[in-house]
Amino acid sequence: MIPPTGASQTFRAIDVIRKKRDGVELSRAEIEDLVNSYTKGETPDYQVSAWLMAVVLRGMTRPETAALTDAMLRSGEVLDLSALRGRKVDKHSTGGVGDKTSLVLAPLAAAAGVAVPMISGRGLGHTGGTLDKLEAIPGFNVNLPVAEFRRVLEICGCAMIGQTAEIAPADRKLYALRDVTGTVESPYLICASIMSKKLAEGIDALVLDVKTGSGAFMKSEKDANFLADLMVETGERMGKQVVALITDMDQPLGNMIGNALEVVEVVEVLRGGGPEDLRELCLELGAWMLYLGGVARTVADGKQQSARLISSGKALEKFRQMVEMQGGDPRVMDDAKRLPQPQSTVQVTSAKSGYVGSLQCEQIGTACVILGGGRERKEDSVDPAVGIVLHKKVGDRVAAGEPLATIYYNAEARAARARQLIEASCQITDAAPTTKRTLVHRIIGKSVEAH
Amino acid sequence: MIPPTGASQTFRAIDVIRKKRDGVELSRAEIEDLVNSYTKGETPDYQVSAWLMAVVLRGMTRPETAALTDAMLRSGEVLDLSALRGRKVDKHSTGGVGDKTSLVLAPLAAAAGVAVPMISGRGLGHTGGTLDKLEAIPGFNVNLPVAEFRRVLEICGCAMIGQTAEIAPADRKLYALRDVTGTVESPYLICASIMSKKLAEGIDALVLDVKTGSGAFMKSEKDANFLADLMVETGERMGKQVVALITDMDQPLGNMIGNALEVVEVVEVLRGGGPEDLRELCLELGAWMLYLGGVARTVADGKQQSARLISSGKALEKFRQMVEMQGGDPRVMDDAKRLPQPQSTVQVTSAKSGYVGSLQCEQIGTACVILGGGRERKEDSVDPAVGIVLHKKVGDRVAAGEPLATIYYNAEARAARARQLIEASCQITDAAPTTKRTLVHRIIGKSVEAH
Repeated sequence: MIPPTGASQTFRAIDVIRKKRDGVELSRAEIEDLVNSYTKGETPDYQVSAWLMAVVLRGMTRPETAALTDAMLRSGEVLDLSALRGRKVDKHSTGGVGDKTSLVLAPLAAAAGVAVPMISGRGLGHTGGTLDKLEAIPGFNVNLPVAEFRRVLEICGCAMIGQTAEIAPADRKLYALRDVTGTVESPYLICASIMSKKLAEGIDALVLDVKTGSGAFMKSEKDANFLADLMVETGERMGKQVVALITDMDQPLGNMIGNALEVVEVVEVLRGGGPEDLRELCLELGAWMLYLGGVARTVADGKQQSARLISSGKALEKFRQMVEMQGGDPRVMDDAKRLPQPQSTVQVTSAKSGYVGSLQCEQIGTACVILGGGRERKEDSVDPAVGIVLHKKVGDRVAAGEPLATIYYNAEARAARARQLIEASCQITDAAPTTKRTLVHRIIGKSVEAH
Repeated sequence: MIPPTGASQTFRAIDVIRKKRDGVELSRAEIEDLVNSYTKGETPDYQVSAWLMAVVLRGMTRPETAALTDAMLRSGEVLDLSALRGRKVDKHSTGGVGDKTSLVLAPLAAAAGVAVPMISGRGLGHTGGTLDKLEAIPGFNVNLPVAEFRRVLEICGCAMIGQTAEIAPADRKLYALRDVTGTVESPYLICASIMSKKLAEGIDALVLDVKTGSGAFMKSEKDANFLADLMVETGERMGKQVVALITDMDQPLGNMIGNALEVVEVVEVLRGGGPEDLRELCLELGAWMLYLGGVARTVADGKQQSARLISSGKALEKFRQMVEMQGGDPRVMDDAKRLPQPQSTVQVTSAKSGYVGSLQCEQIGTACVILGGGRERKEDSVDPAVGIVLHKKVGDRVAAGEPLATIYYNAEARAARARQLIEASCQITDAAPTTKRTLVHRIIGKSVEAH
């Protein structure tokens, strides 16, 4: 971390707004003063929102982005996990549909001896959230006090909670303002928001999973690469090892979408099964976590170790331990019926024979939200039992009348709307798609070059 | 004026912010809803400031600018002067140093039979304001209620007041927000602010004096042309006749700067004397006011009539009448000593012989502010007695030791600072400047083409 400069005596928000408006690079002290004075309530919302819009339209340099991240990080508590043995590593995904890798990776890396202090978010829009998935496990408490979080981490090696009031309060305040002022969509602000929270965990290294494709926030490869680059450089400027994998989100990850269903699929993967794409991505991300965590000599070694931790059952055992320590019912591992169950299911069948040419991923995510499995507004609660199981993925052959998906639902009307969306999202073509999208498009970071 | 569309049921400020951020043209209804909901306090400052910054950086189309102007105009009372005989015409200047033409032109046009309902502003920054100049006349009341304003106008043919609470309240609220959020500097917002207030006067035609040069807000000719074009088109879109003269503000207009001093110079011009540049600009602007006011067949005729109204003393008589009706002491016309007098004067002399190569106009305006003749902050009061009399203008020959200017002051320390600025602002060259800037650079508007 960069040492603080201390608040300037002559700070005037208007000067900082004007400079950014005119495309002049801001100093670290100016950014720090703005963030601090806003967090303290000294600079009003209306000045900060004008500044945020200027950032959206003018952009930021790399030093500015790092300074903003650092100021937001310092606005609250930074966990000191130095007493914990070994390296602390986390993983963060920019969000997608059916992305449940965190639930596999935290116990997997912990089983390898890497501490994983994971602070996650809830689902918003068409994407799911790790906290919602964890809460599908009866009794699981994502709101541990920091002391208890630390205790679970020390004993189990991993712990998964939600953002606390102490972590990066500037981000909470800024995010609420961005949400109502049209200033969410800026890679610089997205980077600072993600990285300030992640680096507040007191980690040594971070593996970023930046999604791209029809189900990602960054639909284009270009935007995903840009954000990945920015986050990696920002983390590295702050003295952390950061690697970003740009991965495919042009169709849902795995076959199950919905909170309880995703826990089922996590257990399948931890048992050595599960769908190939999900299993493969977990191994790729796990490989990097183990390598950056210092327990694997190479990334290839990390991948082999990850596969062994699954086949030996050690990763599942770790998951069971964490669930138990955080108040959850570990019996869900052996009996999926103990997870919340929907009242009904219905199948979506193919109208014609052919191949699945594409799956509009955001629409499928939205279908899950409509069923009640996600949030349209922040204040909405989620229904853990509902969701979608895909029986066909892109490239699969399908016969007329054969099921494409099964909808798990608790309300007929919602199921009908979700069905329409799912039908519309599946494009059935006569010929098999000629190109297959790879799962991992690119890997970046100094650690990649050094490797 | 464009008929109102009525507020939309589905207005969400966030959608309008996002559209402007993304460079999408806003509809008239969207702009109207934003302005109305802001004026009513339904849309908060922090959303409007983000929108304002997006406007600064993305710009506006001509229809958007007209819609904004119209919505701001309609936010308050629009004077209905239809009961008044003849055409109603006003003049507006974008502001400069020594620009006292309004005090000459309102009575001049009224003397010709054109009604001039002039609502003016105060000085801010390095420029003077019409209201401050009028208030240098003992007793002059610029805060007439609308009924009294209308009565003076009916009897005298001209009246000059400050903005009332009823006129364009959206502009007042928006301007206050722009002032603290770095969103003043946008030609679109400047245009809407000026035009909404001017068109609320119930006028038929408007003559704009857009200043350019070292003493203007628009320093470059390009920016001045752009703003002039925008204001003319906006006024024309709203069904008014509008002409803009882009005029020189590379040195102060006339020789006197400071509120009481400028009244002295106004009386000189109305008596047929005064400095050539000021007199000439008054005749040019007056010509257009008379032409657009329908009392002159051509602009040339308007100029001849203007000259005659001065030489006959009719314009001065009209000024005297207006001053009297607005509570001012008309004896200042005959005895300048009845205007506020400073305690002392001091001369600034030339260090060497040569020619005045240039006069940094903004610095001279700032020197007057330092003397107390203008405002550094809105809440400051002004000292009407102080100011600067220039004895040399650009191109004049000067001998070493000869006076360049006289400072009228009430505080030694301020005089010393003003002196330094004036000395620094006068560039003395060995040779006479080869090019002379013309007073009127360009005249634009459909009325010009039609003429």
